[in-house]
Amino acid sequence: MSDLPQSVQINEEGPREGFQFEKGPIPTARKVELIEALSATGLNHIQTVSFVNPQRVPGMADAEEVAARFERKPGVAYTGLWLNEKGLERAVACGRLDLSGSISLTASEPFLQRNQNRSLADNIAMQHNMIRLYQRHGIPVERGSIMAAFGCNFAGDIAVETVLDMVEQIVDIAAEHDIALEVISLADTMAWATPVAIKRVVGAVRERFPLLDVALHLHDTRGMGIANAYAGLEMGVGIFDSAVAGLGGCPFAAHKGAAGNVCTEDLVFMCEEMGIDTGVDLDGLIEAARLAEDIVGHPLPGSVKMGGGLAAMRR
Amino acid sequence: MSDLPQSVQINEEGPREGFQFEKGPIPTARKVELIEALSATGLNHIQTVSFVNPQRVPGMADAEEVAARFERKPGVAYTGLWLNEKGLERAVACGRLDLSGSISLTASEPFLQRNQNRSLADNIAMQHNMIRLYQRHGIPVERGSIMAAFGCNFAGDIAVETVLDMVEQIVDIAAEHDIALEVISLADTMAWATPVAIKRVVGAVRERFPLLDVALHLHDTRGMGIANAYAGLEMGVGIFDSAVAGLGGCPFAAHKGAAGNVCTEDLVFMCEEMGIDTGVDLDGLIEAARLAEDIVGHPLPGSVKMGGGLAAMRR
Repeated sequence: MSDLPQSVQINEEGPREGFQFEKGPIPTARKVELIEALSATGLNHIQTVSFVNPQRVPGMADAEEVAARFERKPGVAYTGLWLNEKGLERAVACGRLDLSGSISLTASEPFLQRNQNRSLADNIAMQHNMIRLYQRHGIPVERGSIMAAFGCNFAGDIAVETVLDMVEQIVDIAAEHDIALEVISLADTMAWATPVAIKRVVGAVRERFPLLDVALHLHDTRGMGIANAYAGLEMGVGIFDSAVAGLGGCPFAAHKGAAGNVCTEDLVFMCEEMGIDTGVDLDGLIEAARLAEDIVGHPLPGSVKMGGGLAAMRR
Repeated sequence: MSDLPQSVQINEEGPREGFQFEKGPIPTARKVELIEALSATGLNHIQTVSFVNPQRVPGMADAEEVAARFERKPGVAYTGLWLNEKGLERAVACGRLDLSGSISLTASEPFLQRNQNRSLADNIAMQHNMIRLYQRHGIPVERGSIMAAFGCNFAGDIAVETVLDMVEQIVDIAAEHDIALEVISLADTMAWATPVAIKRVVGAVRERFPLLDVALHLHDTRGMGIANAYAGLEMGVGIFDSAVAGLGGCPFAAHKGAAGNVCTEDLVFMCEEMGIDTGVDLDGLIEAARLAEDIVGHPLPGSVKMGGGLAAMRR
């Protein structure tokens, strides 16, 4: 309880998560509109697009155009996602994003196979290739990440030891390239985590790797997102990925009910009400969440955009 | 973290919460169908109806008929709600419910005024009258409850001292009638609580009144329901009110976005996954949640009925 951080870094992934998942088509101008609305809320890290195969993810076919068109606000890092060398080359070529690399392993081989069509060994080899590319382009590598760290629809429960072994592998890969990682991100890709599991895994990682900051990437498929974020906060986690209005879902998880990331405005509401600074204006963020709903044309799962904040009621 | 209980008592309020809130009309037979479906899941405490003014709450006009028609399963307590003497007399007259009384105060006078059209002083006088009625009918009184214990749309934040004072008043009222209360229920009626507030208030109540078991009645208007339940579990709370599929909302809170109780199947999922026994079959409960959705004819907020449990994926 006493380990709650004083402030948190929120990495907004709504535009990327949402636009790659929604059936669409969503006009490029409206994607730009959402990114600019989010920029105005105080969010300082916004993942805007993914550079993925437009055949597999048609909603992201206009990634370059989106990146070219939004107005950049000073102090905001606009990031992108890629899953392979080709995607990274596209991200570099577009010349509009704040690129940073990560070393990404997956705790479940069956999921890796389905999601990215690679074995664990292929994936490790690929991480080395990616790092060489990052270094050639002068892109910093500060983050390691582990997908499916809390369980997998295809492999079942994931042992804490497996996660620790994955972190070890990531640290070793980094060391081979003279990289000292700062952050290890644990992703509950298929929403298997509960607060107790968050505490168990984060606790084990912090104990074994005390110099790494832990980040959490949480999905809300089973309604545990905010509770899991709270458990993370209690373990001193100060970095969260989230998506405005709960946009998104995993198109490759073979799971109809898969929900998006934990909802940004719900997370901001909880943090601010608990005295944890997010740097984000909740009322502005609620407006952005309602805009996201208007853009996709159907209700999105976040609660605070419906329920409203409490500031107005205290006046 | 170590104070998590080994098991929890879940009081299902979905039928009462939902049917009094939904625009309807919902046929009596379908209300009975949901109550019987819930009875089959292992839930052993189901609030079925409320005996309130049918002019104000038309969805509950058939309360007596619902109570007369559902089949009782042995071992299940079927309860009802009333807000005044007249409601209690109706509950007694119907002769089909497992009645128990509670001493109910509200931490916010403006809310009490709007919700029940009574002042704090009137309300205390009324609690004495109700207790006399309970005792005349041989109805046990085991629970005190405090509405708006974490904040109020009309009165703002509620101080911990106010809550402690309310508990004290409840204990005193009980003592005047030679009643030793067992449970104090703290209701986050308008969804102001966060996990930190839950810990602060529950901690203070437990410290001052160590012989009382604390129950939580949580609403999910701002998406904090499950996180607040987790915070309660961490404080050793072992009794929760909840509503299947997240049915409900407060018709008098003057708040369009008001959501229902914390969702039963999401709560059961979290507890069971964390090793806390609920006595409830999750798969059966998910079926009941989908039935609730079918009955009301629109999507309901619970997540696990969409995302599914994990047991099947572990097989």
